[in-house]
Amino acid sequence: MSPFHRLAVVGLGLVGGSVARGVKARRLAEEVVGVGRDPSRLHEARRAGAIDRAATELAGGLRGADLVLLATPVGSLPALAREAWALLEPGAVLTDVGSVKGEIVAAVGACPSRPGVGFVGGHPLAGSEQSGFPSSHPDLFEGSVTILTPTGATPPEAVARVTALWEGLGSQVRLMPPGEHDRTVAVISHLPHLAAYALVGVTGEEVLSLAARGFRDTTRIAASDETLWVDIFRGNRAALLAALDHLTALLTRWEGMIRAGEWTALETELARIRALREKLG
Amino acid sequence: MSPFHRLAVVGLGLVGGSVARGVKARRLAEEVVGVGRDPSRLHEARRAGAIDRAATELAGGLRGADLVLLATPVGSLPALAREAWALLEPGAVLTDVGSVKGEIVAAVGACPSRPGVGFVGGHPLAGSEQSGFPSSHPDLFEGSVTILTPTGATPPEAVARVTALWEGLGSQVRLMPPGEHDRTVAVISHLPHLAAYALVGVTGEEVLSLAARGFRDTTRIAASDETLWVDIFRGNRAALLAALDHLTALLTRWEGMIRAGEWTALETELARIRALREKLG
Repeated sequence: MSPFHRLAVVGLGLVGGSVARGVKARRLAEEVVGVGRDPSRLHEARRAGAIDRAATELAGGLRGADLVLLATPVGSLPALAREAWALLEPGAVLTDVGSVKGEIVAAVGACPSRPGVGFVGGHPLAGSEQSGFPSSHPDLFEGSVTILTPTGATPPEAVARVTALWEGLGSQVRLMPPGEHDRTVAVISHLPHLAAYALVGVTGEEVLSLAARGFRDTTRIAASDETLWVDIFRGNRAALLAALDHLTALLTRWEGMIRAGEWTALETELARIRALREKLG
Repeated sequence: MSPFHRLAVVGLGLVGGSVARGVKARRLAEEVVGVGRDPSRLHEARRAGAIDRAATELAGGLRGADLVLLATPVGSLPALAREAWALLEPGAVLTDVGSVKGEIVAAVGACPSRPGVGFVGGHPLAGSEQSGFPSSHPDLFEGSVTILTPTGATPPEAVARVTALWEGLGSQVRLMPPGEHDRTVAVISHLPHLAAYALVGVTGEEVLSLAARGFRDTTRIAASDETLWVDIFRGNRAALLAALDHLTALLTRWEGMIRAGEWTALETELARIRALREKLG
């Protein structure tokens, strides 16, 4: 028996599409409903076998669903979550895949409480510089980590249900308060994206053709969709600014060492960092 | 017939070892002599078939060589090049693989001129976060670009000989003045290394385990040997400082946009950069 009866996925981009495909491939739900505004994308998802049924209206799409996953761009999530919250069937669990958690958790927390339904903020750390349904893959989450951000108000049962979804997709679940999540991803995801864009930004087009593997690896995520990313930067502005301050302060300190010829001091710092990075593999 | 009679490779790390292996595999020289201070590493290189003969003294190692390639750490190159220059046999060509070209080109340029011998600064853009002979590979340069930095004083014949070596190893050769080379690699190689170290530097060890593919790619080169890299930063200090100034200025400008909520302006800049990076593949 499948752990879920009917999963509704709202938004069938890279992440939503991959969840739908993964759930179908692993029979984690008896039925997967795709909800979106674009009928041609829904049609594409149905033809690909990612969803069983399509809906262009939220109310219709959520009917009878015991699990609702929101996978639209991060800036749209707080309003969408409020709307979905009011439509949940008794016993249903609402979750999302947004890269920023503070806003959406606060938005749902401010909704009228509804006994018997629950919301759990979620974020699978498994992106790519690609986006859109054509890049989606049933195994996208295999070996990944997914962060869930329950609060004191979240029913433990809802956390268990959402954990079952991600573990079923091959992801390892970590629980974390929303604020800690946002500070963490600012450092390990949002700041590296901004830095990668900046490294390409300071490189003239004429020398870009000389770039070797190191540059390509370091700046791969600068090929990411800027609309999605500006949306993420906006959603996590405070934490991103704090991380950016740390980065520019460190670079400025190293600039001073380089200017002063303090090579031993610089080497000592880099040795510690290199050892840390080596552990990551 | 091999294009070279006897190639002497001084320094058998990742790059020197890979040149030696590549030359042997493609029979680009009748004989490859490995020159180094560490007899056990020379022995390892001989057992691996990378060299035919080993020498621990420069004079002995360079005897009879028509091509001499210096592949020791960049800080050691200017002095080593001066020493090698005096030992070259008539008709021999001297080259190197250092990541910085201004210093070594100036060092050899200041040597007494010797008719019939020539020096060509070189730099294969094909590193890795790895180093040392065990990581060397005969195909390391396949599909890479190698920059040569001849000056007005360089015999065209010497440039042709060194070009033949790199093209024989599968690399595409580009000619560039030493100063332009140093400014270019500051931007496409040295600055990305410094930035990758910094991105790991601002990340706490406890959250590093959450890093997904984007972070791993962006910071892969932060696993690079810090001794080699501080040596490179020192050798290219002025150009690196200029590139670093550009980067921190751009990040500071974006910080202002994020603080002011100028999302459209930021998105416009990132769109241009994303398009540029996409072209790189």
